[in-house]
Amino acid sequence: MDIAALRKAHPEHWMRAAAIRTLTLDAVAAANSGHSGMPMGMADVATVLFEKHLKFDASAPQWPDRDRFILSAGHGSMLIYSLLHLTGYADMTLKQIKDFRQMGAITAGHPEYGHATGVETTTGPLGQGLANSVGFAIAEENQRARFGKKLVDHYTYCIAGDGCLMEGISQEAIGLAGRHELGRLIVFWDNNNITIDGTVELSDRTDQAQRFKASGWHVQEIDGHDPEQIDAAIEKAKKTRKPSMIACKTHIALGSSAQDTSKGHGALTSDDLIRDTKAAYGWSYGPFEVPADVKSQWEAIGKRGAADRESWEGRLSEVSGSKQKEFARCYAGDAPKKLSATIKALKKQISETKPKVATRKASEIALEVINPIMQETFGGSADLTGSNNTLTTDMGVFSPENRKGRYMYYGIREHGMAAAMNGMALHGGTKAYGGTFMCFTDYARGAMRLSALMGVPVTYVMTHDSIGLGEDGPTHQPVEHLAMLRATPNTNVFRPADAVETAEAWELALTSKSTPSVLALSRQNLPTVRTDHTLKNQTAMGAYVLAEAESKRQAIIMATGSEVEIALAARELLEAEGIGTRVVSMPCWELFEAQDEKYRRKVLPAGPVRVAVEAAIGFGWDKWLLGERGKTGKAGFVGMESFGASAPADELYAHFGITAQGVADKVKSLL
Amino acid sequence: MDIAALRKAHPEHWMRAAAIRTLTLDAVAAANSGHSGMPMGMADVATVLFEKHLKFDASAPQWPDRDRFILSAGHGSMLIYSLLHLTGYADMTLKQIKDFRQMGAITAGHPEYGHATGVETTTGPLGQGLANSVGFAIAEENQRARFGKKLVDHYTYCIAGDGCLMEGISQEAIGLAGRHELGRLIVFWDNNNITIDGTVELSDRTDQAQRFKASGWHVQEIDGHDPEQIDAAIEKAKKTRKPSMIACKTHIALGSSAQDTSKGHGALTSDDLIRDTKAAYGWSYGPFEVPADVKSQWEAIGKRGAADRESWEGRLSEVSGSKQKEFARCYAGDAPKKLSATIKALKKQISETKPKVATRKASEIALEVINPIMQETFGGSADLTGSNNTLTTDMGVFSPENRKGRYMYYGIREHGMAAAMNGMALHGGTKAYGGTFMCFTDYARGAMRLSALMGVPVTYVMTHDSIGLGEDGPTHQPVEHLAMLRATPNTNVFRPADAVETAEAWELALTSKSTPSVLALSRQNLPTVRTDHTLKNQTAMGAYVLAEAESKRQAIIMATGSEVEIALAARELLEAEGIGTRVVSMPCWELFEAQDEKYRRKVLPAGPVRVAVEAAIGFGWDKWLLGERGKTGKAGFVGMESFGASAPADELYAHFGITAQGVADKVKSLL
Repeated sequence: MDIAALRKAHPEHWMRAAAIRTLTLDAVAAANSGHSGMPMGMADVATVLFEKHLKFDASAPQWPDRDRFILSAGHGSMLIYSLLHLTGYADMTLKQIKDFRQMGAITAGHPEYGHATGVETTTGPLGQGLANSVGFAIAEENQRARFGKKLVDHYTYCIAGDGCLMEGISQEAIGLAGRHELGRLIVFWDNNNITIDGTVELSDRTDQAQRFKASGWHVQEIDGHDPEQIDAAIEKAKKTRKPSMIACKTHIALGSSAQDTSKGHGALTSDDLIRDTKAAYGWSYGPFEVPADVKSQWEAIGKRGAADRESWEGRLSEVSGSKQKEFARCYAGDAPKKLSATIKALKKQISETKPKVATRKASEIALEVINPIMQETFGGSADLTGSNNTLTTDMGVFSPENRKGRYMYYGIREHGMAAAMNGMALHGGTKAYGGTFMCFTDYARGAMRLSALMGVPVTYVMTHDSIGLGEDGPTHQPVEHLAMLRATPNTNVFRPADAVETAEAWELALTSKSTPSVLALSRQNLPTVRTDHTLKNQTAMGAYVLAEAESKRQAIIMATGSEVEIALAARELLEAEGIGTRVVSMPCWELFEAQDEKYRRKVLPAGPVRVAVEAAIGFGWDKWLLGERGKTGKAGFVGMESFGASAPADELYAHFGITAQGVADKVKSLL
Repeated sequence: MDIAALRKAHPEHWMRAAAIRTLTLDAVAAANSGHSGMPMGMADVATVLFEKHLKFDASAPQWPDRDRFILSAGHGSMLIYSLLHLTGYADMTLKQIKDFRQMGAITAGHPEYGHATGVETTTGPLGQGLANSVGFAIAEENQRARFGKKLVDHYTYCIAGDGCLMEGISQEAIGLAGRHELGRLIVFWDNNNITIDGTVELSDRTDQAQRFKASGWHVQEIDGHDPEQIDAAIEKAKKTRKPSMIACKTHIALGSSAQDTSKGHGALTSDDLIRDTKAAYGWSYGPFEVPADVKSQWEAIGKRGAADRESWEGRLSEVSGSKQKEFARCYAGDAPKKLSATIKALKKQISETKPKVATRKASEIALEVINPIMQETFGGSADLTGSNNTLTTDMGVFSPENRKGRYMYYGIREHGMAAAMNGMALHGGTKAYGGTFMCFTDYARGAMRLSALMGVPVTYVMTHDSIGLGEDGPTHQPVEHLAMLRATPNTNVFRPADAVETAEAWELALTSKSTPSVLALSRQNLPTVRTDHTLKNQTAMGAYVLAEAESKRQAIIMATGSEVEIALAARELLEAEGIGTRVVSMPCWELFEAQDEKYRRKVLPAGPVRVAVEAAIGFGWDKWLLGERGKTGKAGFVGMESFGASAPADELYAHFGITAQGVADKVKSLL
């Protein structure tokens, strides 16, 4: 690469971009770890984007109508940290840059949402940022239709690398964006031909331009170091009605001896390399030093959007007070005041009418009353709408022709759906939920973990949550998934027993501010077990006494979801023999764990035999069976010890011994 | 669709295909569940494939050189069950067809590997079969290069639906196959334009032909109901050197009133519909009845390959005895006799030299002695070769130019890698292992579950297995993944403490016949803790006493992997205070659980305080802390309670309190 020619052609641009490159070199060297090459390669694209196109105001990072910038190739975190520092984000001090990758710094190894302002999403697991971007763009389209162009009118920009494009999730994202003509989405592909193992050729020969075009994208191919080409391409991309991919031919670790090599992908820490590279850049400053003129150019860029932002604030102040309030409420992520009363009324009605419905159906019943009063909900399903019961009558279907539609047919794309939901939640103003069969948590897992890590309150509607799914067999029957989800930090796993608990779970999911929720819902019909209406949300306690022992209490049966019915029937059998038995419904372990010990002891006192019943692997149940005042030899589990089988649900329950008699026998064997 | 014209044009073909269609209708109706539409749509393609191209012998389903037929669209299981029954596979009796989806039948809702012969892989989770196919084709190419064309010379055929192609894993598979010019792979796309939610248009507008071409595939587009077009397309596909995709325009639920609708995807059980459809087919027979002439045509097809098979057997008998033995050994999945001695020698050397190496490096050391004596191993990494330490000097890299290469640069495709590994293992003759960072288990999860469900002994080399990964931060630090994997049935999760245990774990992984193995390996260096050489494979016991108490035994510290070092240091601290402390290394919970109680009690006797230390979420540890003669109030866990953070590894361990002092303090607090 002829660095001298680049410097000469656009000297001021060169120095601005060089500031990114040298901060990257210095920070990675100081940390003695990180990824130098990507920021060095993409500095020109990022500089032009921030300088001429990205609508933002460094002094107001939360401005709702800002353009969003997503660094899907998250290992290049020094690119975004440099940009945030140079443009003057208050929290991104030089000290933070110097503390790159150190304990307590906001400059984590990969960009972590919630650490630094200006970081719109956590990236690093490849492909996620690209798929998040699709969610950001959906939220923008949907809210523009809802609130009007005066309040919502922005772009989503994303930088993706070869790794992002090789991950399968990218295809799901590309397909969704193409189908829905997300014209406000502009993706830069850092086409540097290098992965960790070597050249891309080692593992892939895909013609990415052709691939994106095949899914309806507008594609341009440019020199990613030519600021004029970059600018012109962004101009064009902003005008097309299709999502845009700009293939930027770049040189990883530009200007260094590691340029165009896989070594350049990683941490370039050699003093000699850094010295020589800076010399090639014409950069004669000390470590972490940015000359005043360059810094002030960057700071001017950081202020470029201030007028826009002020004029937006003016427009916001001109809309009706109720619209202002609604806008603010949605962006605060607050549920409407009406929600609580609506859920209470629904619970009362259920307790009175005692329907026998699958909890997936109960979920639909709840959504039918929730969605009309929460216009910020955005639902969907990975091609199982009629099975997940996720579409309610008022929503409308999102499409290029109906941007107000609040429901997405995601297609057979669980991972893309989950990542898009994360994007919508991160965008703000939208509450996303989406459904699939619980077993396909496996496909969505990469994005579900990020929901938890970022603390975004999306809701996963996971139906067909056990062998109760029946004939579709073990490939479709989750057995380990409850344990997997419960083992994941910051995830509320709800497994409601009936329509009342389902309504309560929805209330908790929709009022959550920083924890995603998983609703594990049955395929099969379940009786209403909460036949006495209570105003209180019992599910909020995580576990509670559903049925008290009549005779002297000798046993406690714990159960969740569809097995609560079995627990109650077992209790009948035991009481008939004079064995006093309490049934504890445990719809959410995490919330029960969060209660004080006094409450937990009330629900699970020492002494009685404890048996848990759940149509899943018992992994993790020892916490409640043996811990919390339990005792070896007086505790047992009735559930699965293997994968399931293909047969009608009733036969499977009998086959695996998950029956009232089985539970009663287990209790008696422990008395 | 003009059924009459189809019938007239190819009357005999029509009746053969109608046999598949009517068996499907009858079986689904009997089960009152299942998926009728796909087999009805793809019956013509399948009929021509089996009649004219597929090399198979129904009387010898395990013939190693058969063509493989993979039904990726596994919900259409009645397609393959019908084919197996009609062509005369001994186990696929009419009774099995009648018992479709019933308890104990081999005709599970989705095709389950190990149930019926002729089912080459478990499918149902969409996209997996397609990605398995890539592994089958790799195994074929690699073994053809190794054993010669006389012994290995076959095709892999796959039927994939719209759902398979929307799942992200499909892109990973397509990219891999295109890169490696897997010309023996031929994929039929059931292009019926219908998904469960409605037309494909609802969620996707991808031009699939263009998409496959972009990744280097040979693409044809045909009428999937015209036997001549089908035949000609397969002919062409067999000749091209590229992988082939044949887009078959079909009508789902052909000839029924549900044709071309999403209703047709599911179970068509109405008597009227079945009657009318059969009438349209010109099929005047009773339920499950196939007229003798049609059945005998099909049986002739089932015998078509017998001569080929016999001639293959002749060729096998002509190669050298040692080659015959080696071929048989590889197909039996037996490790070579030398393996045991090789591992013992390595262990001895390690115990003597006591290297301080990361277990990922220890894994490479083991593979360096294993791979030369096991030519059937096939390794790879999802673009982390230098980090996973999966490539050994003797392997060579697989490519179109070097089919003998036994190492694959999978690219950034964890899911595609895992599914390809499953395919290789299912093909037989190849032992596959592959690496990525343990955190990206999340991406591979869909295929890893199928390894367990199918019982294929692949090995996952999951390095950077904790916060010990350091600065890359929480997106790359697994905390819940050990629990997730341990919760999965039929998965051996090894977390070796040093190079000796790593060698032992490899021996167990490579001798496993029906259980996949996960090796959780450290990034950071670990001392050799097994300094006394034993011939016995201690890891095979799952857990064992690594260091006995010197003073009177008051405590047992349990640990795995990198925390065994910490446990030993804690023991030093405690012994110095006169607190006798045993350290139990637990490299594999599953194998420990499989030991008899006597052994388990010996390792974990009642009485002493128990503390477990593991740099992961404690979920599941109660089994060993409170269960197995443990006691609440006398047990504690030192580990993670949240996601990790971005900082140097040592600082993270200190920050999260996972230190020798922390463990010693925990013990003392419980005494």
